[in-house]
Amino acid sequence: MLPEKTIERLSLYRRVLISNLENGNDFIFSHELGSLLHLTSVQVRRDIMLIGYTGTQRKGYSIPELIEKINLILDGNEKTSAVIIGMGHLGKAITNYFNSKRSNIEIVAAFDIDNSKIDRIISGIKSYHVNDLGKILKNSNVSIAIMSLSQKGAQDVADKLVYAGIRGILNFTSVSINVPDDVFLENYDMITSLEKVAYYVKEKK
Amino acid sequence: MLPEKTIERLSLYRRVLISNLENGNDFIFSHELGSLLHLTSVQVRRDIMLIGYTGTQRKGYSIPELIEKINLILDGNEKTSAVIIGMGHLGKAITNYFNSKRSNIEIVAAFDIDNSKIDRIISGIKSYHVNDLGKILKNSNVSIAIMSLSQKGAQDVADKLVYAGIRGILNFTSVSINVPDDVFLENYDMITSLEKVAYYVKEKK
Repeated sequence: MLPEKTIERLSLYRRVLISNLENGNDFIFSHELGSLLHLTSVQVRRDIMLIGYTGTQRKGYSIPELIEKINLILDGNEKTSAVIIGMGHLGKAITNYFNSKRSNIEIVAAFDIDNSKIDRIISGIKSYHVNDLGKILKNSNVSIAIMSLSQKGAQDVADKLVYAGIRGILNFTSVSINVPDDVFLENYDMITSLEKVAYYVKEKK
Repeated sequence: MLPEKTIERLSLYRRVLISNLENGNDFIFSHELGSLLHLTSVQVRRDIMLIGYTGTQRKGYSIPELIEKINLILDGNEKTSAVIIGMGHLGKAITNYFNSKRSNIEIVAAFDIDNSKIDRIISGIKSYHVNDLGKILKNSNVSIAIMSLSQKGAQDVADKLVYAGIRGILNFTSVSINVPDDVFLENYDMITSLEKVAYYVKEKK
């Protein structure tokens, strides 16, 4: 298993590589890829060597080959299905965002507790009541969930998700939730990021 | 200046401390604070010692005192004003989210290019055309900006922000933008987080 920071960078490399390919480029040097992401060429070469790929000194990396290699590492051969809990502005933004990108991950269903949002198509996907989580996820191949609900009841929803067989959670609430050790939890906290920006702006004055 | 990871943790500590205070607790031990955030008590004690505060062996940290101390570090004495560029679902979600929290950071104005969103109050704040960025920010005390627009034109907006005197940017677009070295840039990439969750779920199977 590769380290988290490497996985994050591979995801970023792929995005930049795809956009370069779309712009008609077939090859890229490590220093070019690095400079687009504010990384050193040494870092780029180390990461890409780690996934067993090498470029040529003269032309650099073949972009289509490198994308293919990263696809294999990040995605494997299967498409990943996700569900999202909470279809307020944040849930809609996330769903629109992910499902409009060329990505191996697809958000296939939404859940909410607000009756006006249930049994409807919202942002292109069907929305169900949270109480039906278990029923809908049973016999599905969904293994990851995105939590974009308000703070209230976040732990309760997390428990339901784990019980329904979810193996990975991306948590957008600012609540600290608990999951068993074998469930991968990634917290995505907007307030912390903004407080960090504010701190460094203040200190640099 | 404190390291980025320390600032991130201080922001998390504060959130947990405020919620503990609201629940009627006046004291907390480092191991309790740590366990709520999945950190070791050693980490917690090291961070809090770094900001010049210590608890007592018998009762732990005084929650109101520690909050006050963190406020001083993170916020200083002034309130921080921010603007947000892009008032789609994501912009609305972010604005509602931040301005509903007790926070020292306030989003005071929004900008968009969509005429239906201009010269209106959206999510409680006034929304202007992006072309008026310079005019509105001039003579204001706004030093940070949140970019929640679609990818198109992100670099152009970043340039406008820097030119208008913005010193810190929280970038929610998945575009890699360039800013001068003296501007603090924090990238907040949703796709990378979700791809990371998907990778670890896949590897753990």
